Amino acid sequence: MTFPFARRIRHAPASFLSELFRVSSDPAIISFAGGLPSSALIDTDGLSAAAREVFATDPRTALQYSTTDGYRPLREYIAARYRTRLGVPATADEIQITNGSQQCLDLFAKIFLDPGDRVGMERPGYLGAIEAFSLYEPEFTAVPFDREGPDPVAFGEMMREKPVKFFYGIPNSQNPSGCTYSQERRKEIAEMLSGTSTVFYEDDAFGELFFDHKPRLPVKRFLPDSTVIAGSFSKITAPGMRIGWLYAPQEILSAFNTAKQAADLHSNFLCQQILHRYLTSCDLDTHIQKVVSVYGRQCRLMCDLFDDLMPSLSHTNPEGGMFLTATLPPGLQAMDVFSEGIRQKVAVLPGMPFFVDGGGTDTIRLNFSNADEGKITEGMHRLAGVIAALSRK
Amino acid sequence: MTFPFARRIRHAPASFLSELFRVSSDPAIISFAGGLPSSALIDTDGLSAAAREVFATDPRTALQYSTTDGYRPLREYIAARYRTRLGVPATADEIQITNGSQQCLDLFAKIFLDPGDRVGMERPGYLGAIEAFSLYEPEFTAVPFDREGPDPVAFGEMMREKPVKFFYGIPNSQNPSGCTYSQERRKEIAEMLSGTSTVFYEDDAFGELFFDHKPRLPVKRFLPDSTVIAGSFSKITAPGMRIGWLYAPQEILSAFNTAKQAADLHSNFLCQQILHRYLTSCDLDTHIQKVVSVYGRQCRLMCDLFDDLMPSLSHTNPEGGMFLTATLPPGLQAMDVFSEGIRQKVAVLPGMPFFVDGGGTDTIRLNFSNADEGKITEGMHRLAGVIAALSRK
Repeated sequence: MTFPFARRIRHAPASFLSELFRVSSDPAIISFAGGLPSSALIDTDGLSAAAREVFATDPRTALQYSTTDGYRPLREYIAARYRTRLGVPATADEIQITNGSQQCLDLFAKIFLDPGDRVGMERPGYLGAIEAFSLYEPEFTAVPFDREGPDPVAFGEMMREKPVKFFYGIPNSQNPSGCTYSQERRKEIAEMLSGTSTVFYEDDAFGELFFDHKPRLPVKRFLPDSTVIAGSFSKITAPGMRIGWLYAPQEILSAFNTAKQAADLHSNFLCQQILHRYLTSCDLDTHIQKVVSVYGRQCRLMCDLFDDLMPSLSHTNPEGGMFLTATLPPGLQAMDVFSEGIRQKVAVLPGMPFFVDGGGTDTIRLNFSNADEGKITEGMHRLAGVIAALSRK
Repeated sequence: MTFPFARRIRHAPASFLSELFRVSSDPAIISFAGGLPSSALIDTDGLSAAAREVFATDPRTALQYSTTDGYRPLREYIAARYRTRLGVPATADEIQITNGSQQCLDLFAKIFLDPGDRVGMERPGYLGAIEAFSLYEPEFTAVPFDREGPDPVAFGEMMREKPVKFFYGIPNSQNPSGCTYSQERRKEIAEMLSGTSTVFYEDDAFGELFFDHKPRLPVKRFLPDSTVIAGSFSKITAPGMRIGWLYAPQEILSAFNTAKQAADLHSNFLCQQILHRYLTSCDLDTHIQKVVSVYGRQCRLMCDLFDDLMPSLSHTNPEGGMFLTATLPPGLQAMDVFSEGIRQKVAVLPGMPFFVDGGGTDTIRLNFSNADEGKITEGMHRLAGVIAALSRK
């Protein structure tokens, strides 16, 4: 039987992420292709204790329907952390709880995009965002991205050319590159958007994961009225509970809330309560420091092994986050590295799905958060074998 | 600041459900307006024990990212229950886990509807579905609904008039009416859809809640290739975990899965595991029998009080579920009953938002699952006072 699907889904590309998860699940493969935080660093004892307390206190409320905006004490916790950590005057009324920050992408696109509307992206840009936005049939425009952030000249041209509904960026430890916008670049972008109706969508999944443990000022500080920030507990607590949030001006949040209610009424209320209980009884900063120290070591190890074993590749040098991008030497193709990698039991992610306008065929993305140092060492040796084998051809 | 929102959200009606939740939260009001299952009947001990076991077994997996389709053992449990309870040959591969059945509405509309596409609805039809579908800008066509189901003559006309992407119905204890399709009507509808490309969307939130404890044959039995069934644990276990599912043919499920991944990667994995642990260690049928016996008593009490105290109103006589609809005597308006009700501390839901083409101004929906017998008695006396006060005017 053939069903009369909507245009948006008939044109949807087969998902690369699904393929990814499938590949990563073969236990013989050392995978740098996924985007998982370290399972070993999840505070299972702390979360278990928090769950016990929620069940001991008022489980009937935690298990019942709740309001769409989310558990208010959790929203207050998030707002307070913005105020103290980043100096932005957030209030709980500006926070909407979502199913991870992925849901922010979907609902934000849903309230802003008519077919053909223009969305600005980084080039390369985050695959999960491209997949979410694509279903609303926008026209993408990609701004070249260097190690300081989006190219300001190209950004200015994009802004002059045709109205842009919103620009989507990851200023902190960008996915896939691992690069972080300089403060100067943040200001330049804010200035270019100031006074326009274009919203800056600041995806801040990795802002807590700087190896020097120092926060960077968000673009929101320089463009307070038309920036939204999407955040997530997936990288600093645990992804399996699917709790993220959007921090946005009231007018946007009101439309976003309408879309959230139509989408699923509200996010898992039991887990919102468990998470809040956990955050207010544990020392989150100490936990994050521990996680970040490990990620920093793993990142340095991966970079060192690139330099030692594969000097023909260049790579970014992340200041934080979970990913880096490597550029292959002339003549090598990312898809060949992927395929030969699967044969040699090491998975990397080809760069192409991060490019909305083609390209990236000579880049690969690697994740350094999920594999420990032993696996990184072994996996990088395998990858060096892959590069050597392909270079000989 | 004014933001350039998409057309779909500029035209979205202010949500009635939000208003509802707000009203229901005043503790002095006895609310029949909401749609909550009984908090007192949630098996908090059983769920607490299940949570403890998940945390004691493999919490790192439960708290990590997972696959989009959902926890396979839970999908197998759901499929097995379809096979044994309803005699439909479901397999786990045909089940996708969602955030409650509300998310099925959103994602199903997303994969089927281009703007202007036609959707068939019951008249009156479920408000949450109308809100979810509306954001994809369809053209609604409403089929009159009597106590046996959608009117077959009008249904036939709808099918001949213009292609219909899908028809959305709740054959078991419909929301808002409380009526259940007769088996004859199920067959007639299946016959009319057979051989067409129109999908029957069978929302089965209440199929486990028949007061006689007997399942009804799903429309899926008569139209196996082009029916999807949406199900939920919200009414038989607990809504706060937001776990539901879509049971659909492979081709639909594949597109649905793409939309689910773009929407939020996957549903809360911790709660999928807790729920599965609970379902396989508790006696679900005994639990449901207990819940249904209470709902049946509460429904009968509400009907009896209508007959005794407000003989000028007519009302439906549900065989199950959580709702009934009452029709006001000539001259009375639902909005006046609502407003006077708030003053007299009893809330009912005006029928209008259930009518996509206007109407329903003389109907009110009442929920009988959430208030216990004492509250129902007191609330119905207050409602009788409201009706009396308005009838004197």
